Amino acid sequence: MKLTKEQSEDIKNQQSQSNETKRVTVPELEKILYEAIPALDHGFVRVVDYMGDDTSIVQSARVSYGKGTKQVSTDKGLIKYLMRHWHSTPFEMCEIKYHIKLPIFIARQWIRHRTANVNEYSARYSILDKEFYLPSSENLAAQSTSNRQGRGNILEGEQAKEVLELLKNDAERTYDNYETMLNERFDGTTIDANKKGLARELARMNLTLNTYTQWYWKTDLLNLLNFLFLRADRHAQYEIRVYAEAMLDTVKKWVPITHAAFLDYRVGAVHVSAKGKKVIQQMAKGEKISHESSGLSKREWNELMTSFDFKEKIV
Amino acid sequence: MKLTKEQSEDIKNQQSQSNETKRVTVPELEKILYEAIPALDHGFVRVVDYMGDDTSIVQSARVSYGKGTKQVSTDKGLIKYLMRHWHSTPFEMCEIKYHIKLPIFIARQWIRHRTANVNEYSARYSILDKEFYLPSSENLAAQSTSNRQGRGNILEGEQAKEVLELLKNDAERTYDNYETMLNERFDGTTIDANKKGLARELARMNLTLNTYTQWYWKTDLLNLLNFLFLRADRHAQYEIRVYAEAMLDTVKKWVPITHAAFLDYRVGAVHVSAKGKKVIQQMAKGEKISHESSGLSKREWNELMTSFDFKEKIV
Amino acid sequence: MKLTKEQSEDIKNQQSQSNETKRVTVPELEKILYEAIPALDHGFVRVVDYMGDDTSIVQSARVSYGKGTKQVSTDKGLIKYLMRHWHSTPFEMCEIKYHIKLPIFIARQWIRHRTANVNEYSARYSILDKEFYLPSSENLAAQSTSNRQGRGNILEGEQAKEVLELLKNDAERTYDNYETMLNERFDGTTIDANKKGLARELARMNLTLNTYTQWYWKTDLLNLLNFLFLRADRHAQYEIRVYAEAMLDTVKKWVPITHAAFLDYRVGAVHVSAKGKKVIQQMAKGEKISHESSGLSKREWNELMTSFDFKEKIV
Amino acid sequence: MKLTKEQSEDIKNQQSQSNETKRVTVPELEKILYEAIPALDHGFVRVVDYMGDDTSIVQSARVSYGKGTKQVSTDKGLIKYLMRHWHSTPFEMCEIKYHIKLPIFIARQWIRHRTANVNEYSARYSILDKEFYLPSSENLAAQSTSNRQGRGNILEGEQAKEVLELLKNDAERTYDNYETMLNERFDGTTIDANKKGLARELARMNLTLNTYTQWYWKTDLLNLLNFLFLRADRHAQYEIRVYAEAMLDTVKKWVPITHAAFLDYRVGAVHVSAKGKKVIQQMAKGEKISHESSGLSKREWNELMTSFDFKEKIV
Repeated sequence: MKLTKEQSEDIKNQQSQSNETKRVTVPELEKILYEAIPALDHGFVRVVDYMGDDTSIVQSARVSYGKGTKQVSTDKGLIKYLMRHWHSTPFEMCEIKYHIKLPIFIARQWIRHRTANVNEYSARYSILDKEFYLPSSENLAAQSTSNRQGRGNILEGEQAKEVLELLKNDAERTYDNYETMLNERFDGTTIDANKKGLARELARMNLTLNTYTQWYWKTDLLNLLNFLFLRADRHAQYEIRVYAEAMLDTVKKWVPITHAAFLDYRVGAVHVSAKGKKVIQQMAKGEKISHESSGLSKREWNELMTSFDFKEKIV
Repeated sequence: MKLTKEQSEDIKNQQSQSNETKRVTVPELEKILYEAIPALDHGFVRVVDYMGDDTSIVQSARVSYGKGTKQVSTDKGLIKYLMRHWHSTPFEMCEIKYHIKLPIFIARQWIRHRTANVNEYSARYSILDKEFYLPSSENLAAQSTSNRQGRGNILEGEQAKEVLELLKNDAERTYDNYETMLNERFDGTTIDANKKGLARELARMNLTLNTYTQWYWKTDLLNLLNFLFLRADRHAQYEIRVYAEAMLDTVKKWVPITHAAFLDYRVGAVHVSAKGKKVIQQMAKGEKISHESSGLSKREWNELMTSFDFKEKIV
Repeated sequence: MKLTKEQSEDIKNQQSQSNETKRVTVPELEKILYEAIPALDHGFVRVVDYMGDDTSIVQSARVSYGKGTKQVSTDKGLIKYLMRHWHSTPFEMCEIKYHIKLPIFIARQWIRHRTANVNEYSARYSILDKEFYLPSSENLAAQSTSNRQGRGNILEGEQAKEVLELLKNDAERTYDNYETMLNERFDGTTIDANKKGLARELARMNLTLNTYTQWYWKTDLLNLLNFLFLRADRHAQYEIRVYAEAMLDTVKKWVPITHAAFLDYRVGAVHVSAKGKKVIQQMAKGEKISHESSGLSKREWNELMTSFDFKEKIV
Repeated sequence: MKLTKEQSEDIKNQQSQSNETKRVTVPELEKILYEAIPALDHGFVRVVDYMGDDTSIVQSARVSYGKGTKQVSTDKGLIKYLMRHWHSTPFEMCEIKYHIKLPIFIARQWIRHRTANVNEYSARYSILDKEFYLPSSENLAAQSTSNRQGRGNILEGEQAKEVLELLKNDAERTYDNYETMLNERFDGTTIDANKKGLARELARMNLTLNTYTQWYWKTDLLNLLNFLFLRADRHAQYEIRVYAEAMLDTVKKWVPITHAAFLDYRVGAVHVSAKGKKVIQQMAKGEKISHESSGLSKREWNELMTSFDFKEKIV
């Protein structure tokens, strides 16, 4: 990631602010406020605003449950209780705003999370930057043979080189032709004074899906955690997981108690079906278990064994 | 409105905070942060947190439109443009959180606005305060004879007195019986040590709809303006309008440019139908207009004339 | 539940329709379409429209995953897979509309589920029915001593009688006074021709929270299942659970495959935290477990043991 | 638009269904159910399911307003009233599901409407069709010189030819290289048996934004109308307007009364600001108006004059 001189100036200016407020603040998050945390080759994640902290969740819960919460003596105990019992509304009381730079094909996955506010850079109005994502060699994976949507082994040698060449050349050529159609370079210079440029809203269609875009993305903590649960997961596509992991770090700085509860009750948790529960019960009693009598499909059985790191997988 | 000693202490503590932040702040709003602004006889509106200001809207719009916004030279011009052309997403980039105390029948209207985060005091967990709304005499209106959902003239004399007596007595009696069923007073004292109390989640059903409840209510600026457009309107029920007007004042302190644009393009604006447009065109040309040839229903015609303060109403 | 003659006629008319359509239909659901399924003493649940069936979920998933779904050979297998792996969007492709009659205090819980479309009977426009919920004696529970929001033992004898009397008398008296203030009976007759009636939007505040209201409530299958997961749960308040259970039956008729997967992967499932997982792993290996070394709080430990019906609870 | 043999078969099968239902049906919409209405060069719009009709809106409104709606004697009068006074919830009671095939850069605009359910064809799982949008010559417009996001005159002669060549060649080349990287043709044949294919979730990033995708898109009538208001508008990008206009036709067949009210009160309506209202009032009185004294910006003034087809524009 390389910031333009203008961007670096902006960030420096934003970070040099020092305002007084009666609102709650989070010193750990303030330290990295506005900072561009690198993601992929040209992308970044920046926290640009936030509202509330762990105590805001507690405060809201105490309004809801009134004296009913007094028995949970500590903030930590209460947040853990709320997380464990799927109480959702207190976590909606915190809000965060990110500035994200990301490839378009990842933006398309991301936008499917609807409960967020978004302002994206518009290629109807303006010319997109000449920046596109190229995977590093250790992320250039073959199609998985076992999982329809997953990745298998890394491509190597000649084929890896060939793929990277194709990606790079196609992105560059389509971008050059984008400028040609616009009759304008990104820096604003006209290419041929005797020609008109194609409308921006049309020319953009020539760009490839690894072109970078950027947006402001604002959401509440509950929906952020739902997003991170799915996107920081190992089944998520690597390219979005990079962003999710960077954001998970910002959550740790922002609301450390909630972050710990999230790891325990969500990220590291196991969801066992009614049929799976019977298998676990048998195992705990030392009874012999068998796939045949479990009522589970082969796939379910293996998922269950994997989730508890049990060895009894079948083929 | 009378705050309990505990509430007054809380507010004083919150207001005495002084934290440093790199976030944007709004000094005018900070001045009234946490303050309980009275509404109705026992209710209040408190701003307890906020995120962003007028410049946040501008910043988000400039990310979207990129260099495309440079031609709108000022922040004010840009915000007016966004409001006029129904651009919605930049206004979603500001967030505000209120603490509200309000009668239950108003809470039921309010909650129909779904795009907000809410934590309400739960009468399953805790005992509700002994506070209920009683209209002041100038708000004790008869049913309108012309408008199925509106109010007509003020009730006067004996009947007004009678209505107030009924409301007061019923609220008090049902509250007393609520305590009797709970076998517990609001202050926590047990009434009869030999009795069990009815479950709170059941006892609450005996309360009348003018009993006060409270909640934290958090929303973005766009949805707040939509709420205020409907609820600060003269057709809104008086009891919710009181809250909406108090909140509109807080919007003025928070985002003054947006507030002014909202008054001009929403609150004071007129929406003219395709058929109504033809009537206006004729009037502007000095042509004679007539209800008969307009294609408008009598009701529509009168609504059009009223909205422009024209005299040509029909009966 | 007793329907008015007018309501019975309406239902009969609706049920006697027979239209031709190219849309998918669900004969099992058609059988009970429009029928008023009783809930509580005066309430009901009616399915009044629906869109899609189990095959619609499959069809949407196959559009998403294209040839990628061919390896899951059956509709049932695919729906189970989707449910197990928290794929949500295909379940949003089915929609259902209910007509519900329910007490106001339950409506207030219900409305907190925001992703639904609602049209409620408005007491600003019209006079509410003289119907209020009175718990049957086996549901007249004392406040739980161990759970701040729960119910304990049933109230008995004199106290039960007293509570029911209070609820009944207060509801009747406040309703009578509601009519007095309106100067109008529910059947439309004027009480005193020399008096004006108080505006409906004001008079309604005198009603108690067990008064019945009604609404049309429309949602997609995903959000319906989320609602039912929380509200058909044994921790939900009995009065809303009655509705949730009636609705769960309609789901079974509507989308039987999804219903079965929902029972297996949601209703009957167990969610085990990261720390809880270690305890289960030890048990399965036949190792001795102890609360002390688990890192779980006492409450968590007991919740874990309860969820698997293990005996190792502590006090 | 050319359908594959398989698609044509599917549509024929779906259309040959004839089921019996007690639900309301809309014969005019049934006639075109499942039909692929062409849009752009390879896209289509298909209505694949619906719920409710004009009477469903009326029915819901009558539940809300109870006897209060009896004074509006006809369904048409009531729907017009609801539309005029921004009553939104009754229109949410109808639902429709479309199957849409569209270019990715249009899908990215479309998805910003968040209150809809979506299942999109996933290029993580499956290979995208070799189909991309190429504008017809009369839609190949230059960038507008006056409007940052708009189109100006049509490109002509050599330049038009050149642009089309670039778009076509780049789309074809990037698609060919997409297949090369996948080591697989769209029809499933392997290219080189000695090579592995790049993971689909990566290879897709090489495609250009005019590649076609497809999705199921389901929404309620209120949100559909909001979408159409913005996207069937003459300021919308031509390529999305084509879809919006096709969908507006389906709305006309589905809910003709609502469609007519929508044209009158939304599409053909004029929104006049508080300041603009004063100008109209002066004109209607035959007073001389002037931009200087109006308080309107030049741009606002001209927008007002344009919206009423008045001649008093300024430069």
